[in-house]
Amino acid sequence: MEKPSLKETSFATNMNSSHKRETVCVFGTGDFGRSLGNKMFQCGYSVVFGSRNPGLSGLRPQGIEVLSYAEAAQRSDLIIIAIHREHYNFLTELAEKLQGKILVDISNNLKINQYPESNAEYLAELVPGAKIVKAFNTISAWALQSGTLDASRQVFVCGDDKESKQRVMDIARTLGFTPMDQGSLKAAREIENYPLQLFPMWKFPLYLSAALCIFYFVYCLLREVIYPYVHEGKDNTFFLAISIPNRIFPGLALNLLALVYLPGIIAAILQLYRGTKYSHFPNWLDHWMLCRKQLGLIALAFAFLHVMYTLVIPIRYYVRWRLSSRVINQIKTNNTDPFNTTNAWLSDCYVALGILGFFLFVLLGITSLPSVSNTVNWREFRFIQSKLGYLTLILCTTHTLVYGGKRFLSPSILRWHLPSVYVLSLIIPCTVLVLKFILVMPCFDQPLTRIRQGWERKSRVSKKAQLGNGNTEV
Amino acid sequence: MEKPSLKETSFATNMNSSHKRETVCVFGTGDFGRSLGNKMFQCGYSVVFGSRNPGLSGLRPQGIEVLSYAEAAQRSDLIIIAIHREHYNFLTELAEKLQGKILVDISNNLKINQYPESNAEYLAELVPGAKIVKAFNTISAWALQSGTLDASRQVFVCGDDKESKQRVMDIARTLGFTPMDQGSLKAAREIENYPLQLFPMWKFPLYLSAALCIFYFVYCLLREVIYPYVHEGKDNTFFLAISIPNRIFPGLALNLLALVYLPGIIAAILQLYRGTKYSHFPNWLDHWMLCRKQLGLIALAFAFLHVMYTLVIPIRYYVRWRLSSRVINQIKTNNTDPFNTTNAWLSDCYVALGILGFFLFVLLGITSLPSVSNTVNWREFRFIQSKLGYLTLILCTTHTLVYGGKRFLSPSILRWHLPSVYVLSLIIPCTVLVLKFILVMPCFDQPLTRIRQGWERKSRVSKKAQLGNGNTEV
Amino acid sequence: MEKPSLKETSFATNMNSSHKRETVCVFGTGDFGRSLGNKMFQCGYSVVFGSRNPGLSGLRPQGIEVLSYAEAAQRSDLIIIAIHREHYNFLTELAEKLQGKILVDISNNLKINQYPESNAEYLAELVPGAKIVKAFNTISAWALQSGTLDASRQVFVCGDDKESKQRVMDIARTLGFTPMDQGSLKAAREIENYPLQLFPMWKFPLYLSAALCIFYFVYCLLREVIYPYVHEGKDNTFFLAISIPNRIFPGLALNLLALVYLPGIIAAILQLYRGTKYSHFPNWLDHWMLCRKQLGLIALAFAFLHVMYTLVIPIRYYVRWRLSSRVINQIKTNNTDPFNTTNAWLSDCYVALGILGFFLFVLLGITSLPSVSNTVNWREFRFIQSKLGYLTLILCTTHTLVYGGKRFLSPSILRWHLPSVYVLSLIIPCTVLVLKFILVMPCFDQPLTRIRQGWERKSRVSKKAQLGNGNTEV
Repeated sequence: MEKPSLKETSFATNMNSSHKRETVCVFGTGDFGRSLGNKMFQCGYSVVFGSRNPGLSGLRPQGIEVLSYAEAAQRSDLIIIAIHREHYNFLTELAEKLQGKILVDISNNLKINQYPESNAEYLAELVPGAKIVKAFNTISAWALQSGTLDASRQVFVCGDDKESKQRVMDIARTLGFTPMDQGSLKAAREIENYPLQLFPMWKFPLYLSAALCIFYFVYCLLREVIYPYVHEGKDNTFFLAISIPNRIFPGLALNLLALVYLPGIIAAILQLYRGTKYSHFPNWLDHWMLCRKQLGLIALAFAFLHVMYTLVIPIRYYVRWRLSSRVINQIKTNNTDPFNTTNAWLSDCYVALGILGFFLFVLLGITSLPSVSNTVNWREFRFIQSKLGYLTLILCTTHTLVYGGKRFLSPSILRWHLPSVYVLSLIIPCTVLVLKFILVMPCFDQPLTRIRQGWERKSRVSKKAQLGNGNTEV
Repeated sequence: MEKPSLKETSFATNMNSSHKRETVCVFGTGDFGRSLGNKMFQCGYSVVFGSRNPGLSGLRPQGIEVLSYAEAAQRSDLIIIAIHREHYNFLTELAEKLQGKILVDISNNLKINQYPESNAEYLAELVPGAKIVKAFNTISAWALQSGTLDASRQVFVCGDDKESKQRVMDIARTLGFTPMDQGSLKAAREIENYPLQLFPMWKFPLYLSAALCIFYFVYCLLREVIYPYVHEGKDNTFFLAISIPNRIFPGLALNLLALVYLPGIIAAILQLYRGTKYSHFPNWLDHWMLCRKQLGLIALAFAFLHVMYTLVIPIRYYVRWRLSSRVINQIKTNNTDPFNTTNAWLSDCYVALGILGFFLFVLLGITSLPSVSNTVNWREFRFIQSKLGYLTLILCTTHTLVYGGKRFLSPSILRWHLPSVYVLSLIIPCTVLVLKFILVMPCFDQPLTRIRQGWERKSRVSKKAQLGNGNTEV
Repeated sequence: MEKPSLKETSFATNMNSSHKRETVCVFGTGDFGRSLGNKMFQCGYSVVFGSRNPGLSGLRPQGIEVLSYAEAAQRSDLIIIAIHREHYNFLTELAEKLQGKILVDISNNLKINQYPESNAEYLAELVPGAKIVKAFNTISAWALQSGTLDASRQVFVCGDDKESKQRVMDIARTLGFTPMDQGSLKAAREIENYPLQLFPMWKFPLYLSAALCIFYFVYCLLREVIYPYVHEGKDNTFFLAISIPNRIFPGLALNLLALVYLPGIIAAILQLYRGTKYSHFPNWLDHWMLCRKQLGLIALAFAFLHVMYTLVIPIRYYVRWRLSSRVINQIKTNNTDPFNTTNAWLSDCYVALGILGFFLFVLLGITSLPSVSNTVNWREFRFIQSKLGYLTLILCTTHTLVYGGKRFLSPSILRWHLPSVYVLSLIIPCTVLVLKFILVMPCFDQPLTRIRQGWERKSRVSKKAQLGNGNTEV
């Protein structure tokens, strides 16, 4: 966090340094072009701007020249095109001068898939003799100017010419970024869409939890607010603030956690059925598998809210009033409640199970932090995410079961034939646990393990390959 | 975390390996020189020490030679100067032999800005024919010896000769560090100050919160302890442990959170007023902007403490005693409090708002972890820090407003004309929210957006450049 | 998190790209061989498989050839051996064709130290003319296939030939991994054991806490459940769920935290006694020092559980029943408890100290996250882990002392002559704090500081070296 000040000063002092520098040319003196040019200048590159009005551009740093496009292009074999796609066509006139040069396309669009082809491919069509590299489009002008790189440092690079790509990746590294090779220029489309995306992997998990949330909310509203109002004339609307959320959140957390493990079970069943791991899963399953981390983190968020809503219970006016009125009643009726050991057991057990479940849940969340998961090896990662994950699911499911306790399916708990929310929320986790229990039985586990090691049922070729060459990965 | 053992063994076994090695020379056999030399030896370099008393130095690893300075210098073109700055002058005698060699200055000082010029620049003056590179000064001997690199792995490198710098950066990378190019040798001064700094970016936020904390503490002491003692003779001193901190902390958290967003608003107003984003902000504003993350994290710390202090309320002896004495009073006076739905609403609402605000606050804190913020793109980062941040501020401010509830400005709550602390702590957040509300109105938002895209009011040059070249960054 | 989709698409589109590619040969078409081959193909390499049955292998991606081993070997000077160690012997027949080529051993074993020599060294014996590099064994086929690299991205590389190692490290980097140079081929043994390890650094801390946990559990069982049952016939078994864990956990947390700082104190005493820091510590102390982070994190986990178990106290049926029965008793006996200011002070103080201790503990935990500890310099890291750590220990110890309060050693608290658990758990932390207090006194601190800067008592050689060359590190 201390680097900003350090860097800014060093940039400033760097300007007069005298060692021989590589020259980079930037076409366009707009905001991003200037920021990138200045940054490269500060990092030791000699920078030349190309502009339509070279005389007019009020660039501040001394030592940076602004020339016409044609002149600037002659100074360097690497030209950064900091110009909007709509103005690219003037480059056709310069095509001859750009022959064999590396053109770096840094442009972004305003919408996802705005044009039929990516900007970089369009540039390649306009200047066929140049080597096009796509890069830097995920970096913001502000990040370049302020020197603080709190957001992503990743520069996605793609291009058909390997050496040009290497040159651009070297520049990115010198500027303090992390270049990521994304392959050929065809990848430019994806790279151009990337900065326009807003949490794409979170969309499905968020929509799913929103839908579940609304369903549970309406359900609770019926049971806890409308039913008492209709049948007993009670005004329970204030339940909307805490009581009802605290029924929705644990249900959601439990269901979403179970939905993290369900796709793995479906995949295992599919693999067992197909007898191979080399056929593709259906798309929805693939997408679901890739969203598991996000689903789990949303489940953790709801579990956290559930914990907080539970811990504030004794502070609530409603709860305090109810407790004291109960004491007053006992005295008035002179009828003291005796201590009930079973109740003490049940109450303590479901609380303890909940705490342990939440503790493991938090542990899973912490190990999913990128910097933590990078320090564990593959075996450890699987141990945490699979073994500890299922233990968490078991603890949380038992927590809910014990919470239900004696009154679980007693008909007195039904209102308009609707059971409590926690009964509903047990359906998915119990299904997942039962299926998992079946799958870990040796008769299913053994063939599955072999399939996952590359073995294929009914496939002569692969069997031979397996016998002959074997693989090294367990 | 498992790497230490792995590495140490591999280092040990490495000593007998026979492949051709690059030779590095280390001047000085002090603690750091030895540690660095051994580490390079373990990582496959051939190491030669230069010493004043080559015969006497009891270096353990076999295979490392200790020679006189002059002899050692001839073995390698890269010499690490592991000597205190005060003893540099002997190098002038060797100046001829050091001609054209790379000298790596790894020295630190005892105080910030101890000498007029940096040690590396001083070395460059003494040995004008050598290529000076500053590096490794942020690494500790202990970290090199133990092989555990829990502290920073960043090696800041600067120097005027690009190739020499590259050589040193390669060595740093081989030793398992992350080299950071900091530009020309002029940056050495900053790099030498760096390991002497203790959370420089945290100083202003910490002093500010300490000052606010003391102010609120004295204020609360007056209202909650001295006033009751003077007027009612009550001994409320035990409030000092929990009750008063739990009034100070939420106030601080709310104010500091608001102060995170205030500089952004001031900057926006300045930009609107000046009509350009290219003039520099005043220094205090720049510094404030750079401290926002730290301010936010301190606010989160206070919010966390507030949550903990609130959740323990029902465990406190004082609260238990008050609740039971209230029940006993109701029975004695035979005057049962009726249930008040408005109170239930207010109590549940402010608790729920507080929980949601804290939840978002924790989310903001998690996304400010470097490894998390590195995985989001710029649009996502801004979404979290700006949208979610303001939502947090709104929730926390409303939480405080609802907490005040009916008694907000009723004169009965004033003691010595002083309102409650929460009333004071609402001033800054409400101001920020009102200003932000004004700024998001289209009449201000539209010009501001254009200015931030590089547009400049009243500037012919830039306008043309904008029209002609445009920039690619939104 | 959004990268998977991005990458997969770019991989797909990459296949038709036309630029000249480096050719890599893979021996073996098993699961891992195929995954690695496909991944390299997607990242721009030209890939040739060598197989015993070249005609049969049903490889999907077009553009990848499958040849016989001999033919495939001629296509590239870099061959990845994706074959089980047991089948290596066929390579002796090809020895001539593999002369001078780089062979990359990616194999793993099923058990730690399964064979007398590492697989890579065995390969080097079989094909003496080849340059053997060990790499990629820590990567899983699944990670290669799915493109999601949530687990470790580190590829440990070792080998005797520096250039070959560099080639392999370049490939690893291109595939998106982080290559880590581990030295000569002798390190292969450790690298092969690495993916078989399951949290090796956590073993000792976990066993230690399990042993302590069992001891405390039996102790509590005796005092809290069996004693009341024998002497008063009370059934307190439900204490097993919450009450007893909430006595064990804080004791464990406090003891483990103290055990984090004990080895440092022992090391300081040893260094003072020996008068040098250059002699090795005993092995048990070395191992203990390396486990401190893990010990601290386990202590934090127990502290977290203690906090949760404490916060749910007012929700427990048992506690609610006891509180209301106490109120009922007061009314029945018409004997109201007066408010006791000392009790209020003690209760509030121990709660406040506990909260502050836990807060600092969480802070220590956060700064031990790899991505956070990488951003602080060495001085800051030591400040947090040492100063803040001791402050945490002091706060938590005081918390326990105040919790004991008046009844600390009153004989009435003894049951079967056993004091409460918290008395036991204070022994280690108090010892550590007393020893630390002695060590920071100048008469011990000054020589210790000098020793840690490299000074040696009674050693003529080092003293001279120290005087002559000095070191640069404080």
